[in-house]
Amino acid sequence: MANKEFDVVVIGAGPGGYIAAIRAAQLGFSVACVEKWTNPAGKMVLGGTCLNVGCIPSKALLASSEEFEKVGHHLADHGISTSDVKIDIAKMLARKQRIVDKMTGGIEYLFKKNKITWLKGHGELKAKSDGGYQIDVKGEAPETVTARNVIIATGSKARHLPGMPVDNKLISDNEGALSFETVPKKLGVIGAGVIGLELGSVWRRLGAEVTVLEAMPEFLAAADAGVAKEAAKQFKAQGLDINVGVKVGEVKTGKDNVTINYTDKDGKAHTLEVDRLIVSVGRVPNTDDLGLGNIGLATDERGFIPVDEHCRTKLPNVYAIGDVVRGPMLAHKAEDEGVLVAEVIAGQKPHIDYNCIPWVIYTSPEIAWVGKTEQQLKAEGREFKPGQFPFTANGRALGMGSSDGFVKVLADAKTDEILGVHVIGLNASDLIAEAVVAMEFKAASEDIGRICHPHPSLSEVMREAALDVEKRALNK
Amino acid sequence: MANKEFDVVVIGAGPGGYIAAIRAAQLGFSVACVEKWTNPAGKMVLGGTCLNVGCIPSKALLASSEEFEKVGHHLADHGISTSDVKIDIAKMLARKQRIVDKMTGGIEYLFKKNKITWLKGHGELKAKSDGGYQIDVKGEAPETVTARNVIIATGSKARHLPGMPVDNKLISDNEGALSFETVPKKLGVIGAGVIGLELGSVWRRLGAEVTVLEAMPEFLAAADAGVAKEAAKQFKAQGLDINVGVKVGEVKTGKDNVTINYTDKDGKAHTLEVDRLIVSVGRVPNTDDLGLGNIGLATDERGFIPVDEHCRTKLPNVYAIGDVVRGPMLAHKAEDEGVLVAEVIAGQKPHIDYNCIPWVIYTSPEIAWVGKTEQQLKAEGREFKPGQFPFTANGRALGMGSSDGFVKVLADAKTDEILGVHVIGLNASDLIAEAVVAMEFKAASEDIGRICHPHPSLSEVMREAALDVEKRALNK
Repeated sequence: MANKEFDVVVIGAGPGGYIAAIRAAQLGFSVACVEKWTNPAGKMVLGGTCLNVGCIPSKALLASSEEFEKVGHHLADHGISTSDVKIDIAKMLARKQRIVDKMTGGIEYLFKKNKITWLKGHGELKAKSDGGYQIDVKGEAPETVTARNVIIATGSKARHLPGMPVDNKLISDNEGALSFETVPKKLGVIGAGVIGLELGSVWRRLGAEVTVLEAMPEFLAAADAGVAKEAAKQFKAQGLDINVGVKVGEVKTGKDNVTINYTDKDGKAHTLEVDRLIVSVGRVPNTDDLGLGNIGLATDERGFIPVDEHCRTKLPNVYAIGDVVRGPMLAHKAEDEGVLVAEVIAGQKPHIDYNCIPWVIYTSPEIAWVGKTEQQLKAEGREFKPGQFPFTANGRALGMGSSDGFVKVLADAKTDEILGVHVIGLNASDLIAEAVVAMEFKAASEDIGRICHPHPSLSEVMREAALDVEKRALNK
Repeated sequence: MANKEFDVVVIGAGPGGYIAAIRAAQLGFSVACVEKWTNPAGKMVLGGTCLNVGCIPSKALLASSEEFEKVGHHLADHGISTSDVKIDIAKMLARKQRIVDKMTGGIEYLFKKNKITWLKGHGELKAKSDGGYQIDVKGEAPETVTARNVIIATGSKARHLPGMPVDNKLISDNEGALSFETVPKKLGVIGAGVIGLELGSVWRRLGAEVTVLEAMPEFLAAADAGVAKEAAKQFKAQGLDINVGVKVGEVKTGKDNVTINYTDKDGKAHTLEVDRLIVSVGRVPNTDDLGLGNIGLATDERGFIPVDEHCRTKLPNVYAIGDVVRGPMLAHKAEDEGVLVAEVIAGQKPHIDYNCIPWVIYTSPEIAWVGKTEQQLKAEGREFKPGQFPFTANGRALGMGSSDGFVKVLADAKTDEILGVHVIGLNASDLIAEAVVAMEFKAASEDIGRICHPHPSLSEVMREAALDVEKRALNK
């Protein structure tokens, strides 16, 4: 019997892969998607890291832990009193899993609706063949399919460190840290990146004493320096003990604790004993067991698949998107590349402006930005004007009881074009959307300053920051 | 002694007036602002209705009441348990007043910083004079000043009804309803507009049994009909008893109750007995005691001052903005007119596109929109395509535990230009900002569909609704 043939086979059903599959199906192609992910209940599921052990469950825990913190500490101001505030971690985790199940089940529905074949198993590229590429699907019912076009969307996995074996009990990566059955008394976090800060914050709010050890000399080096400074101040005030410039030495696991030896930024030796340790030191692309060599593809030295601006590999009709290629490891970047590749296959001329891809860190307050940071513009020698406005002068933020942070707008000194927008504050993840639209339309800061924003709303802070570029904020 | 002379005198220091004063000062004019508002502590304050008894205090109470409702009813899902949940209304009102004081104090600081003279008292136009207009300031130290340019920004007051004398005890308008010292057991609300719904919701969440009586046959007739339908469903589920097409008859006040006789939409007679009654049947412009006739200005039959698109009255150098002129009675519309007039006086060429002024109703879920509603487009005979996407398919909304509602995008059937965007859901007041920017740039729905939105964020719902215009939402 001949192999099953598809116009498009996507390997991986994370946000990049499943969106690529849906867009390709919308464009009239026959589409299959290979995915082997199995959830804790033993069921095979779609959605990959993002939906199962990444963006979605972490946001559920962030919300639960924020509610817990609020009810315990921030309602007296409203005149609200309570007693016996407790959290049942099992119920909190069950809620998280219900949300994950709803989302992954939703993709399964979308696959059926769009007539996408889910090939359950591990996908491995086998050989070039007439009219495409052969892909082995290694699962309960092994089979080989032929793809006229291949989209590699296998994502990434947590980087582990030598000497720190991840068992997801004592030492955890993002997966284990989403499922602690009890709140650790003392929690260590190695790596002050997005995942370390988000999960460290979750367990801190639930009662853990959290120490974060970061090797880099600067905190949140990717963010605008002013935002990073404000974030460090806020997180410290919340009780996160963040240490930068740290060199981690020997890590020893006991029966129910972990001992971390490290030297601080001044070279002084310390020993930290914790109940649990989270290792969040970045992610590496999943390109090991893909059979890339079988069709003549190779990764770069860091494991990424080289692609051009249309996510084309060096082989015809083989594309790669998301965390396995250059660019930020962000779900929405993967999604947009998924749409782009499907449209390229359909002969369209799509384009992604990587400078207009927003970044979000879901701490409290949230951090979000798009475009260049102040230090990037300085390094480029570009003349710019900054404008900044604090949430503390915004009536809505005061009403909501959350007025930390600010919006910062960076505009070209000559043309006034917006070059970067940085938000630290409540709902930054939503406020940034306006800035992305503005930058895609090459808006000037004056445009945002002249456009009506509802009163009272948090978005007024964006407008005032834009007006402040020309030092004419109205409420500052 | 000669009168004090100013380039610009603004009458009224609400959001329209104080912003006009600041913008005029930024542009180099000598500016004074007349304001007589006295707060409950007997102190004269700036900010007008919006800051003192409108937008700002209502948002503070909305937040407090939403926290109270959440802690009482919506935390079990997160695994959080509490007991003895109580609210101290005096503390809640004190928090509200602190926020109001901070904001009004902030304007006082801004006036000093911008060298704006605050003329404390009631402003009355007295006569034309050489070089401008004479204005009497009737206050503790009465004086007459001369203004080369006058900006009338006296705002509006609650409309009262015959037979329903507002004492702000038993029968209240927006002012009294922000300061009930106890939670009424039964609360009646006459008028299902923005103020009635917001304040009705506040006291409902705090424990009142709320009945809303609306004379119009349709609920929220100004909103998109689909949004209004969803809102009615949500508010009903929350326990607001909303009755449309009602004809209110005799209203009798007792010692500590109010009896309202009304007939329902089918003509059936009812009697409603409540502890408190809120009358929220719209607002009328404050143009009575302004001395308009002394300089030859007249209002229209509804009390508004006729102006052109630059807020110019028929008299040279006399302008009127905000609630005393045509257009929606919205604080941000008044602000934008304030900026516009200051710039017109300075010889600039500003412009306001009234179609791009957003509307917000701060209920829960929030409602916000910009541009045309579906029923307006149908009435105009304009061909359009609708796109819609629910929050319930959004991972962030699920994580936050608030996934009611949807975003609806209406685009021109031929050009795809966005004609209207309607949001009912969490943070609608912030999400709408992106849509306003897009409409100001004459964006097509495809633009929003192609622009990257962070994952997971509520703003993804906006993108999906835009994609749904061409029936290619990715997650629907």
